[in-house]
Amino acid sequence: MGDPSGIGPEICVKAAFDRGVLEKCNPVVVGNASIIRKAMRVLDVDKQVNVINKIDEANFSGEAINVVDLKIRDDKVIEYGQITAEAGSLAFHAVKKVIEMAMDGEIDATVTAPIHKESINLAGHNYAGHTEIYAEFTNTPKVAMLLVDGDFRIIHVSTHVALRKACDLVKKDRILHVISLMNDACIKFGIVNPKIAVCGLNPHASDGGLFGHEEQEEIIPAIKEAFSNGINAEGPYAADTIMSKVVGGFYDGCVAMYHDQGHIPFKVKGFVWDREKNDWGKIHGVNITLGIPIIRVSVDHGTAFDIAGKGIASCDSMIHAIEYAIRMSANKNESDTTGVASTDKGRK
Amino acid sequence: MGDPSGIGPEICVKAAFDRGVLEKCNPVVVGNASIIRKAMRVLDVDKQVNVINKIDEANFSGEAINVVDLKIRDDKVIEYGQITAEAGSLAFHAVKKVIEMAMDGEIDATVTAPIHKESINLAGHNYAGHTEIYAEFTNTPKVAMLLVDGDFRIIHVSTHVALRKACDLVKKDRILHVISLMNDACIKFGIVNPKIAVCGLNPHASDGGLFGHEEQEEIIPAIKEAFSNGINAEGPYAADTIMSKVVGGFYDGCVAMYHDQGHIPFKVKGFVWDREKNDWGKIHGVNITLGIPIIRVSVDHGTAFDIAGKGIASCDSMIHAIEYAIRMSANKNESDTTGVASTDKGRK
Repeated sequence: MGDPSGIGPEICVKAAFDRGVLEKCNPVVVGNASIIRKAMRVLDVDKQVNVINKIDEANFSGEAINVVDLKIRDDKVIEYGQITAEAGSLAFHAVKKVIEMAMDGEIDATVTAPIHKESINLAGHNYAGHTEIYAEFTNTPKVAMLLVDGDFRIIHVSTHVALRKACDLVKKDRILHVISLMNDACIKFGIVNPKIAVCGLNPHASDGGLFGHEEQEEIIPAIKEAFSNGINAEGPYAADTIMSKVVGGFYDGCVAMYHDQGHIPFKVKGFVWDREKNDWGKIHGVNITLGIPIIRVSVDHGTAFDIAGKGIASCDSMIHAIEYAIRMSANKNESDTTGVASTDKGRK
Repeated sequence: MGDPSGIGPEICVKAAFDRGVLEKCNPVVVGNASIIRKAMRVLDVDKQVNVINKIDEANFSGEAINVVDLKIRDDKVIEYGQITAEAGSLAFHAVKKVIEMAMDGEIDATVTAPIHKESINLAGHNYAGHTEIYAEFTNTPKVAMLLVDGDFRIIHVSTHVALRKACDLVKKDRILHVISLMNDACIKFGIVNPKIAVCGLNPHASDGGLFGHEEQEEIIPAIKEAFSNGINAEGPYAADTIMSKVVGGFYDGCVAMYHDQGHIPFKVKGFVWDREKNDWGKIHGVNITLGIPIIRVSVDHGTAFDIAGKGIASCDSMIHAIEYAIRMSANKNESDTTGVASTDKGRK
């Protein structure tokens, strides 16, 4: 459901009643029934809320929205657009619950709406974001964030850490692992012999060592080892130059050395600010956590406190995330042998 | 002229004979006559080379290209696409010469073609790029690189330094100076009360201090002081989020904390890789050095060794750079009081 003060509940409601979504999967919202009812009032959706404890109590007729109700707080203390411990607590427990449900095999995949990090931290849960919560509760030390928008796929060696710390994390083993995750993900998406570009850390990938040593000492050895493992990895490339090619679809995947190196081109491509309309254009991107034993896909936009509760938030990115989760789930059930159970929900 | 092994000589020749360029200014190439003759053969341009020592020997009829000849090396030792000390030496001395000519008031403005940093360094000139050469030979300790593409203008707190060093350079005084340079440049471009976005250093601008302290300790104090100085500066913003707005023209200028933070969105916007055609689209951007007492505008592409000598390089960015130099030169002569002399070349 995401942060109850943001647009998460609204986009969950919109997506859960979307005809295309209902044709392809059986959606369940994990969060709070009264918050979902409030979102339905905002959206003027005149349907039922079906509060459930277990998946077999769900109703997938499209006449009701199924909500696994955490019963922590009701909507009276939650105001749209506010950073509060109450909202953070609810958002955190919804994420924790959906991870448990996936780990228990109750559900095939998880899709997350945006949370607000300050609220989560105010509530005493010291995580930088969803990715870190998933890493902890799936007991996975090495996870990576993959952003996908059409043919543009970019994975990160680190995400929510200070830039100085991100420099420290540019280490051969970590880079090699992330290159492998990118390669595996591309193969799961149906790409044969994926072509992967690896960015440098420093400007101009240090121009042969003129400014910075990480390319020579860590990144090049990682690329060489990946290549000797049969992965078609190239680089390190100057990030500013290679991103145009990556955005243009010249590579199947790209490895960014830190959060903004990957997120800036991703958002510049996917989010278009329209000066005339004073509004964002369509948002297409999704965010996938790799390395964990369950499927997690997320919208790649924030809580949008400025428009929360107005009923105007687009659910396009949420629907796109759901579609990716379905696609990965289908491939998981065909090829995965990690032992995560699959339910018989009649997915098409 | 740029690096003689790259596309610089070709794009200089193309631009120097461009009718639009000749209508608006009086172009002179600083470099090597035999290299320019070679570029003319590559381009099949059947015109004269007018070798000059002083501007008053130039011929602006359009029938000849005026070359201030450094007479260091001839074209026999220069091969296209090679990193060599000879090419680096020629490129470096051309830059040094054009700076001297501008400092002496012989010319109104300087426009630079791409150089290759490794060649320059092989030749014993330890500079990271043009910007650093201009800083030294104009005796300016604090310079900044501004990238411009239409309404998208982005300046950098640091450029050609290792990312770890760039983190160290995120200091209040330096940021304040760069905000002021951005504001002054916007005013010179004719913008009243420029609206300037300032990026954070860390992902999500540290999310209120969750990852990194530079926003609280350096960037916010700089923005506050700029604001109290009457500059309409805002931030610090999460770089990945704000860039879409900046690219979309919501701000008049943006302050990036390091090279790639500004260069990635700039190149993703301006360089479009066409997968079908396996080629770059049009390149619009220019690069302006601010803080120096002379005008310097550059193309914002590299030496393109892969296509050098083939006669296919686009001179669009070079022409765009020349147009910006003319525009800044016109404004300089109207408002500037730094004492840099202007020649009476009849600029329109």
